[in-house]
Amino acid sequence: MRILMINPNTSEGVTARLEQAARAVMSPQTVLDSVTAPAGVPYITTRTESLIGGVSVLEILSEHHQEYDAAIVAAFGDPGLGAARELFDLPVVGLAEAGMLTACMLGGRFAIVTFAAALEPWYRECVAWHRLEARCAGVHTLSGAFRSINDVQEEKASLLAELCNQVAASGEADAIVLAGAPLAGLAAQLRDQVPVPLVDCAEAAIGQAETLARLRPAKALAGSFRRPAAKPSTGLSPALSARIAHDTAQ
Amino acid sequence: MRILMINPNTSEGVTARLEQAARAVMSPQTVLDSVTAPAGVPYITTRTESLIGGVSVLEILSEHHQEYDAAIVAAFGDPGLGAARELFDLPVVGLAEAGMLTACMLGGRFAIVTFAAALEPWYRECVAWHRLEARCAGVHTLSGAFRSINDVQEEKASLLAELCNQVAASGEADAIVLAGAPLAGLAAQLRDQVPVPLVDCAEAAIGQAETLARLRPAKALAGSFRRPAAKPSTGLSPALSARIAHDTAQ
Amino acid sequence: MRILMINPNTSEGVTARLEQAARAVMSPQTVLDSVTAPAGVPYITTRTESLIGGVSVLEILSEHHQEYDAAIVAAFGDPGLGAARELFDLPVVGLAEAGMLTACMLGGRFAIVTFAAALEPWYRECVAWHRLEARCAGVHTLSGAFRSINDVQEEKASLLAELCNQVAASGEADAIVLAGAPLAGLAAQLRDQVPVPLVDCAEAAIGQAETLARLRPAKALAGSFRRPAAKPSTGLSPALSARIAHDTAQ
Amino acid sequence: MRILMINPNTSEGVTARLEQAARAVMSPQTVLDSVTAPAGVPYITTRTESLIGGVSVLEILSEHHQEYDAAIVAAFGDPGLGAARELFDLPVVGLAEAGMLTACMLGGRFAIVTFAAALEPWYRECVAWHRLEARCAGVHTLSGAFRSINDVQEEKASLLAELCNQVAASGEADAIVLAGAPLAGLAAQLRDQVPVPLVDCAEAAIGQAETLARLRPAKALAGSFRRPAAKPSTGLSPALSARIAHDTAQ
Amino acid sequence: MRILMINPNTSEGVTARLEQAARAVMSPQTVLDSVTAPAGVPYITTRTESLIGGVSVLEILSEHHQEYDAAIVAAFGDPGLGAARELFDLPVVGLAEAGMLTACMLGGRFAIVTFAAALEPWYRECVAWHRLEARCAGVHTLSGAFRSINDVQEEKASLLAELCNQVAASGEADAIVLAGAPLAGLAAQLRDQVPVPLVDCAEAAIGQAETLARLRPAKALAGSFRRPAAKPSTGLSPALSARIAHDTAQ
Amino acid sequence: MRILMINPNTSEGVTARLEQAARAVMSPQTVLDSVTAPAGVPYITTRTESLIGGVSVLEILSEHHQEYDAAIVAAFGDPGLGAARELFDLPVVGLAEAGMLTACMLGGRFAIVTFAAALEPWYRECVAWHRLEARCAGVHTLSGAFRSINDVQEEKASLLAELCNQVAASGEADAIVLAGAPLAGLAAQLRDQVPVPLVDCAEAAIGQAETLARLRPAKALAGSFRRPAAKPSTGLSPALSARIAHDTAQ
Repeated sequence: MRILMINPNTSEGVTARLEQAARAVMSPQTVLDSVTAPAGVPYITTRTESLIGGVSVLEILSEHHQEYDAAIVAAFGDPGLGAARELFDLPVVGLAEAGMLTACMLGGRFAIVTFAAALEPWYRECVAWHRLEARCAGVHTLSGAFRSINDVQEEKASLLAELCNQVAASGEADAIVLAGAPLAGLAAQLRDQVPVPLVDCAEAAIGQAETLARLRPAKALAGSFRRPAAKPSTGLSPALSARIAHDTAQ
Repeated sequence: MRILMINPNTSEGVTARLEQAARAVMSPQTVLDSVTAPAGVPYITTRTESLIGGVSVLEILSEHHQEYDAAIVAAFGDPGLGAARELFDLPVVGLAEAGMLTACMLGGRFAIVTFAAALEPWYRECVAWHRLEARCAGVHTLSGAFRSINDVQEEKASLLAELCNQVAASGEADAIVLAGAPLAGLAAQLRDQVPVPLVDCAEAAIGQAETLARLRPAKALAGSFRRPAAKPSTGLSPALSARIAHDTAQ
Repeated sequence: MRILMINPNTSEGVTARLEQAARAVMSPQTVLDSVTAPAGVPYITTRTESLIGGVSVLEILSEHHQEYDAAIVAAFGDPGLGAARELFDLPVVGLAEAGMLTACMLGGRFAIVTFAAALEPWYRECVAWHRLEARCAGVHTLSGAFRSINDVQEEKASLLAELCNQVAASGEADAIVLAGAPLAGLAAQLRDQVPVPLVDCAEAAIGQAETLARLRPAKALAGSFRRPAAKPSTGLSPALSARIAHDTAQ
Repeated sequence: MRILMINPNTSEGVTARLEQAARAVMSPQTVLDSVTAPAGVPYITTRTESLIGGVSVLEILSEHHQEYDAAIVAAFGDPGLGAARELFDLPVVGLAEAGMLTACMLGGRFAIVTFAAALEPWYRECVAWHRLEARCAGVHTLSGAFRSINDVQEEKASLLAELCNQVAASGEADAIVLAGAPLAGLAAQLRDQVPVPLVDCAEAAIGQAETLARLRPAKALAGSFRRPAAKPSTGLSPALSARIAHDTAQ
Repeated sequence: MRILMINPNTSEGVTARLEQAARAVMSPQTVLDSVTAPAGVPYITTRTESLIGGVSVLEILSEHHQEYDAAIVAAFGDPGLGAARELFDLPVVGLAEAGMLTACMLGGRFAIVTFAAALEPWYRECVAWHRLEARCAGVHTLSGAFRSINDVQEEKASLLAELCNQVAASGEADAIVLAGAPLAGLAAQLRDQVPVPLVDCAEAAIGQAETLARLRPAKALAGSFRRPAAKPSTGLSPALSARIAHDTAQ
Repeated sequence: MRILMINPNTSEGVTARLEQAARAVMSPQTVLDSVTAPAGVPYITTRTESLIGGVSVLEILSEHHQEYDAAIVAAFGDPGLGAARELFDLPVVGLAEAGMLTACMLGGRFAIVTFAAALEPWYRECVAWHRLEARCAGVHTLSGAFRSINDVQEEKASLLAELCNQVAASGEADAIVLAGAPLAGLAAQLRDQVPVPLVDCAEAAIGQAETLARLRPAKALAGSFRRPAAKPSTGLSPALSARIAHDTAQ
């Protein structure tokens, strides 16, 4: 089974963390590759950046989709996920989606905890897009600045543990999703310090991608994720333009 | 009052129809300009194309936002609307948003009627994003192909009138939004053939843009549409990159 | 274009404020008249008073509806709005409706801020009737008494600014609707003191009434706002009774 | 225990049917009186008429509330119910409310079946006001005209039985509320012809009024149904005006 | 009229309190019997115990259902209510259901107040099962331990009154349901100390059971509460097994 | 990794099908055991039988929970799932839950398709309990009888394929969950005959159980799934009684 992890952020260090966390729990039989977006922003935090990152996801998938059994959109907020799911034939799962749906199996309501207040509006829209608001007990964020996106999880580990404990103490959440690609791998370290189950999104995403790949689902020919009809375009990458045009080379 | 109408589609003919419909009802004091996306697809119908069109909207606004009192994202589905609203200081309204909110004042529930089945999934997601599902009595589409996006409204006028009558006869909708930029101006012609009020989105959008401009709302400094903090980026248009970077030239 | 503003309160001073705020932003081509309810209460705050004010709205419209292109029910809470919309042929917009729908174009969720705690239950029911609860971040009120309904906006201006700032600081609201006819015109003065966009309901209402009038929507012949069948009645004003009876003189 | 049944319609024949149905099932110890609205329309079917009937309910209660342990607003749609509940000290239950809440104890979802299509919009708003939409499987109506409101239940009995059977066959409804004051007493006759439980609203209302009276609930001093503060008014009936003014004689 | 009150808890003292509270308000013509579960736990507080108690309810009903006109599942949380309603022919009402629906007639939103924090998750699921979340302003519980389930209402009376006052002061609740079978009869004592109406669930349940019995509803032959087809089983009580098997002796 | 699959039905043949379907897709490293309920009914279809099956699940888990890393409640409808999740320390996933959450990653809305109309009410309640109604496009069932629960998938394969095609043709569902333990393994055979992705619940469940086990989530010490306090009981199996009593042997 071959799985492609796409980091729509341009930070190579974040990609490394995502891959490391996934490798720690994936099946020995799984082959995992990862790609970092060549353009965009170092870490996506806004609706604007999510649009830009979403196009990157489509461009990367249009180059590589034929080589994999499943793909992961590896930024919380799942930029481009719906578009990827309609445009390509392989199953695609989002980092947020995987984290939230996995958390659903650990209790009635999950809270989302992350490291920067700027992420909240985009994360809330992500929860709404997935229609999981009835399962979500809120998005909780640290308030201060951080030094480096690559090392934010070490810098903020103890503050995040504290925030998780506050959220758990409120009694509203049965589980907590540690959100944001830069936090990949942190849950394993904080697990014993927090009184509700913690979900690591990279761990969840590799598990969900494996599950989807094993189901070998047929590409939808009906419903809202059927492949759109061929269409010409201008100004896109050649591979993406070809995929949209149903150019058989892609 | 100066208003900019942005067509995220690359079809100049559609831009002309949008502008004509808006000019027919706007205040004599209003100055209206329009821009057609230089890249992308001729008409946006999918999640994929909405992402691409959304980036076009941001690029166009980053060039022109300082010259206008309000802007219109002139494709039903409102590509890039949330991003535009957070990134720029002027009020921005979407074509779908304007049509739907105007329809809300004409009855309890509105139906959306359009010319192509391919539009339905994207339109439904648009209704959900605006959290207007409780007001929406469904998205109803014609099923066949069409010849030219520029002339689809003439080609399909009688079929659309028939569909509107079927929808009205169901009793579920108090008003009908004629959706899709290519249908701009059609409502005025079908109005007498349909037993519930018809909303022309271009007419609604210019009215809403004028209303917003007159309110002179302050740019949000709090809430989820405050301007994001400055951030570096790669691979974007110079103007958009500068706006994201808080480069003062923009 | 001729627009009628109906104040279902008996306070002439409030009518004057509403008219002044509307005139400040309306198109030069618009003709605006206003009527104050001859009977009822000085300012509507409860379900009981909303019923009474709603009948006043119907009585006033039955006298004047044929002379106007659109009408405004100029009390927040929109007494009689649904009834007016079904009974008469011209478009009718409510003060709350206009304020809330306009606020929807300025962000995801709006808060309602007003000057008296007694208004909260009725306002909440108004939000629910419009099915805008998913867009509303709460009704926030001052707690103390006030001296005069005509001058409450001067008396409470600084307290309202403070409350708006508290609401904005919570991060829950992207925009604030300054609610209540007696506050008409206040938003223009507080705009610079509050970090999210403020909506003045009188400004919004005149803009929405103009937009509706320009669309020239046909009276619904189907749906839930079609005109009810003729019916006899007793004890009503002659004009209202005649309108309900389909007496052709009305 | 003394209960007042208020018919906001002006049809005495309907009052007689309501009273007869209630007496057939009430406790022998209960004393039931009824009042018919002196003004308004013969049978309420619209938002407009509901406003007018709602004021009648308040006027009647302001005359008689001190003599009773509970009151029934005996028109489906519950005109004036919220206002009555805030303005007076005794428990008040609506005909629709009683029918729907009783039906909730007979299954997951209830359908509403009635005799005239004109009633549907108002009934739907009533369901929404009570926030029972998740329990309601729709409002189903006969489509034709009827001869006399007093005898409509005999005229339409077989058509209503047929409609109830269609609704039950759909599998969507676990119980059916026979709605509309003119149908009071009909459920007892149709019960054996319909495969899901039928709820007679007059039977339900007297049962609920008795239950409320036995609980002897204190008048709310807090919450949204606390009694509004005293206020002057003009143009209302003396008793209603006095109640609103906290005039101690009332 | 004969009504059976089933206590799915094994505490006889709680049964006595339930019966006493019901007798205080029921019609003189009503005959009330009660049964205490012979097996299970002294007081149900969890999902686990609710499953166990639910089976007890079915076993008890399978022995006695033919002798009664209606039955009450007398534990808040309504264990086994849905199953009982589908399996047996007589109307069955739950203690929580009766309390909540009765509270609905006393205001827009009710709060649930009870004596132990352990009850909250189960109570919340009960509110959701009844689809009354839009009417519920929260489940509020005392936090400490208690000495005896039979006497917890005396032990906690003043703390519960205080908690009710806090809840009422928040303005969110129009009425309060005093929840939990062990609190049966307490509302009558606290009524004057709390500024919103208090609902005693045992009082509400007997009233609702009487109302249902008077309606003589037919057993559903359609819808989701029709009696399931006959099925063999192993390991159940003989009477329950026979009822499930449509063994005519039951 | 050791996983326990619990069939709350008494049909050994169904257990064999579940196990076979799971083994076909599980990781080579996973050890899977299964247990069939010793008492109850051959196949659970109703609320009543779900209660009974739920207690079986708890009894089985109380015997075996210490030997496994995760458990599966292997009946669609997930009897006892919430109770199992609160009472035991290992992660537990339901067959319906796994099928529905997996389907969520294949599109916006999933339909549930099964072989017997009797299953619909219970399945609908299961969807509601998981708060996935916004993602569910309905429960669709065959209408006729079947010969043997063990072989129903062969008997009904072509009818189920036909029903799946009808559901897909409606355009409402992006994916279909083939529901019911007796259909385990059928999706692999029908996959090519249906134009939207099919989810096999047994395949999904083993995938989800593996994912949960790899996350090694801590048992909740807070939130609504914390372990309940110790409590005495009567009439339960010794192991279940001991687990509820916090008897250390369990």
